[in-house]
Amino acid sequence: MSQYPQSPLMGQMMHQPLLISSIIEHADRQFGKNEIVSRRVEGDIHRYTYRDCHRRARQMANALRALGVKMGERVATLAWNGYRHMELYYAVSGSGAVLHTINPRLFAEQIAYIANHAEDQYLFFDMNFLPLAEAFAAHCTTIKAYVMMCDRDRMPKESKIANLLCYEDLIDNNTDDYVWPLFDENSASSLCYTSGTTGHPKGALYSHRSTVLHSLASCSPDGLNVSARDVVLPVVPMFHVNAWGLPYSVPMTGAKMVFPGASLDGKSVYELFEQEQVTFSAGVPTVWLGLLTYVGQNNLRFSSLKRTVVGGSACPPSMMKTFMHKYGVETVHAWGMTEMSPLGTVCTLQSNHLTMSEEARQAILEKQGHTIYGVQIRIVDDNFKELPWDGKTFGNLQAKGPWVISSYFKGEGGDVLQDGWFPTGDVATIDAEGYMQITDRSKDVIKSGGEWIGTIDLENIAMSHPAVLQAACIGIAHPKWDERPLLVVVKKQGADLTKEELIEFFQGKIAKWWTPDDVTFVDELPHGATGKILKNKIREQFKEYKLPTA
Amino acid sequence: MSQYPQSPLMGQMMHQPLLISSIIEHADRQFGKNEIVSRRVEGDIHRYTYRDCHRRARQMANALRALGVKMGERVATLAWNGYRHMELYYAVSGSGAVLHTINPRLFAEQIAYIANHAEDQYLFFDMNFLPLAEAFAAHCTTIKAYVMMCDRDRMPKESKIANLLCYEDLIDNNTDDYVWPLFDENSASSLCYTSGTTGHPKGALYSHRSTVLHSLASCSPDGLNVSARDVVLPVVPMFHVNAWGLPYSVPMTGAKMVFPGASLDGKSVYELFEQEQVTFSAGVPTVWLGLLTYVGQNNLRFSSLKRTVVGGSACPPSMMKTFMHKYGVETVHAWGMTEMSPLGTVCTLQSNHLTMSEEARQAILEKQGHTIYGVQIRIVDDNFKELPWDGKTFGNLQAKGPWVISSYFKGEGGDVLQDGWFPTGDVATIDAEGYMQITDRSKDVIKSGGEWIGTIDLENIAMSHPAVLQAACIGIAHPKWDERPLLVVVKKQGADLTKEELIEFFQGKIAKWWTPDDVTFVDELPHGATGKILKNKIREQFKEYKLPTA
Repeated sequence: MSQYPQSPLMGQMMHQPLLISSIIEHADRQFGKNEIVSRRVEGDIHRYTYRDCHRRARQMANALRALGVKMGERVATLAWNGYRHMELYYAVSGSGAVLHTINPRLFAEQIAYIANHAEDQYLFFDMNFLPLAEAFAAHCTTIKAYVMMCDRDRMPKESKIANLLCYEDLIDNNTDDYVWPLFDENSASSLCYTSGTTGHPKGALYSHRSTVLHSLASCSPDGLNVSARDVVLPVVPMFHVNAWGLPYSVPMTGAKMVFPGASLDGKSVYELFEQEQVTFSAGVPTVWLGLLTYVGQNNLRFSSLKRTVVGGSACPPSMMKTFMHKYGVETVHAWGMTEMSPLGTVCTLQSNHLTMSEEARQAILEKQGHTIYGVQIRIVDDNFKELPWDGKTFGNLQAKGPWVISSYFKGEGGDVLQDGWFPTGDVATIDAEGYMQITDRSKDVIKSGGEWIGTIDLENIAMSHPAVLQAACIGIAHPKWDERPLLVVVKKQGADLTKEELIEFFQGKIAKWWTPDDVTFVDELPHGATGKILKNKIREQFKEYKLPTA
Repeated sequence: MSQYPQSPLMGQMMHQPLLISSIIEHADRQFGKNEIVSRRVEGDIHRYTYRDCHRRARQMANALRALGVKMGERVATLAWNGYRHMELYYAVSGSGAVLHTINPRLFAEQIAYIANHAEDQYLFFDMNFLPLAEAFAAHCTTIKAYVMMCDRDRMPKESKIANLLCYEDLIDNNTDDYVWPLFDENSASSLCYTSGTTGHPKGALYSHRSTVLHSLASCSPDGLNVSARDVVLPVVPMFHVNAWGLPYSVPMTGAKMVFPGASLDGKSVYELFEQEQVTFSAGVPTVWLGLLTYVGQNNLRFSSLKRTVVGGSACPPSMMKTFMHKYGVETVHAWGMTEMSPLGTVCTLQSNHLTMSEEARQAILEKQGHTIYGVQIRIVDDNFKELPWDGKTFGNLQAKGPWVISSYFKGEGGDVLQDGWFPTGDVATIDAEGYMQITDRSKDVIKSGGEWIGTIDLENIAMSHPAVLQAACIGIAHPKWDERPLLVVVKKQGADLTKEELIEFFQGKIAKWWTPDDVTFVDELPHGATGKILKNKIREQFKEYKLPTA
């Protein structure tokens, strides 16, 4: 695999491939009695240990062998965060097959497209997805059988799916006498499709090496900082970039794992936090919005939660402040992509920051942060010329590293890299200390009079207004300036706010020419399958909009 | 390199080799302004940044190229912990040559043996080692030139060494225009000889891959737990297993680095801790003994120190308690070997331990801990049969992992591995939770009546007596029991203690048949070049000793 020259003198160290199976083996040997707790889609709470998980993963690996699954073949899952899904993470990848996690929030036709493109051989699904599975199964051409992740007595009497198997039957019918195979660490381990807003979804095909290296780096104190003293609840779904790698990095550390299942509403997440004394969680801003709303409305506190990592979209500074100042929960900004496994940067402070004023520290923490070791970033102009790290200059953000894709599965999208760098599609600044801040998606940036206006800043200011629940900013065609910003706003329930008041609110907070030309209020904003606001839908909706300044 | 089969489907991730040069590049890009502070052998304090270090390492890489150093060739250092030594870590390994760190506490003949065995091409030394270098230079057959690590005006007018170069001349005469070469990550990076107590020293030849993986794993919260908020002072020397990897792991995190130079006495280390506000340090028990004695005698406190890692030898529980209870400094036990890069286990607690009594937690913390991800351990009997993890059964400790050697440099010592495992030469127990405790070196264990007595326990009990400064326990031939324990003790200055009182002190603390048969008081114990007590010397000294019980 390596195209690099060897030294005349090679090291004399043990050569062990970096394989995903080694993670669950480590968790079993060193932390065998530590717990994995799951809120099941069946409604109850399930508890067992890393040792149990490893045993059942080996049983499932035997089951996959009996089903005829071969190295490199894809096995799909359509499931929430739970212990059976975790077993499949290890059973499928550990045995040399490729785990393909599918987002169940996609439409049936999209799922069928992805499953066919991936040539999935089997598909495992949570029992509540039976109707969805029945809807797309007829369109899937490569799947030999479907496995419903439940006990025998929960299986339907009859189903439109002919070849329907029961997960617990597969476990029961196989022994745990299984030795994880050793193979080249660059072998494919898992496949995750990006929910591209345009064109067909494209697959990121991870390797065992990239996954293990990503996990090692993400455990570090300036990464996700997970230790054996933590209780971790990944709110970010296991079908979304492998829950940011937590099903791998958490067993590496021996921390107790808590899976929330399908219930991601504020009340359910809060109750699980308290019941299991969760210390660390990770998710996208929309989930935290629900949680903070519930906690605020009911005058609750967090008794164990110490740290949340926020990624997927920029965390509104107002949310960060609420977590930190009202509830004493450290909130850490992270940035990444499906194409990056996903972790690229994390925003943590350095020793020389600790004596700064709180405002100065807060200003740093609102950025997306510096790279963790392994990832390199840079900003370039449209001619790929590198731009300065001055905290002001905008540029197209590129990334590099051993857990960044080199191309998409089956070559979709052609040559992706630009001079060896992956173009992230984000627009960002990087300051002299190396802290990166996303100012926009390159397709969302507003081009006004030849200059760029970043929409994230405008949205953050709008969302810091006490009457605003959500805000999205888009460019609207303008006869003089090409584009000018329109702010699309969802007000908080019962709040009173005029467009003039909101525009006034921007004064002194931003360059005058960045101020939105207009505000429009809506009942809700369109969200995609991963919870992100779909700006292309909003642009579509407002494509005929006439600005008062036009 | 990989002898493992490839999957029919390989991952589509960027393939970047894990190279040591990437660490200093990361530190420069992301933490370029963070400081490296060195107490120089010249006597003053030197300050600069990671960016400066990277620039000068590139200048030195050009200098090495100009000197004709080729990939795989060995370049030796004989130096304390300081910024120039750090530059060589990156310049030598980063350019593809092999950094050979030599322990200056060895005798001149030993150094010459090692340098000849390694076929070192150049040797860099701190200016205070000039007399030592002059003593061994005549016996070194492969070294083309010697480089004294100082400014031009510190160079001697004349020297017995004909080919003597000046470090700062090499820097000044070369530009920083140097691009780190990319090569196979299994290429040799550095070489470290073990100070074997018998036979010739043997070399552990690390690779770039093993070094980077070791650094990544050792950064983790349950490893050395170094973050960008730390100020790190490695007391453990850079000539001793690469200062436990800190010159690699610290730049990975961006923490401020503080190098103590040659002054490792309690006063010097304490002053540097306070002056630079050090939060984290790592070293062997003998150094901490000096520090604690100084701090205790002068009624001082640590104003910034939060955590020390203790390795090399077992940390006496009394020392651990003094650090934790008297000074509030967390003391973490670690275990490793030169042959393991060195980190194998670290003793940290898990979430379920946090509610235990302080005594119960302390009992865990006195063990050597559980493995960090990447390392596997097991205990076996003399027939290599695996022994149970019950916290009681003694066995020969074996280890495995990507940063464990597979053989010694040039095949010294022949086939080292036993069934794929590295025999550590330690005797240990492992408990049901996976916590390992060294009970002895296999050659130090006392065989009494067919059973084993671990000497470390006996030494720890002796050292918990307020009148005891140091203690070593050895087996003395006994007509009935084969061997029985003799305790060799150094009393604290001015302390009053009889052998009867000390033997009485063991009552109730240990199985009766483990109690030493006799005690003898000495003025000092012999120490080796890495600060460890040399038991073979003590055994030699007492080989004619007659026990009163014989």
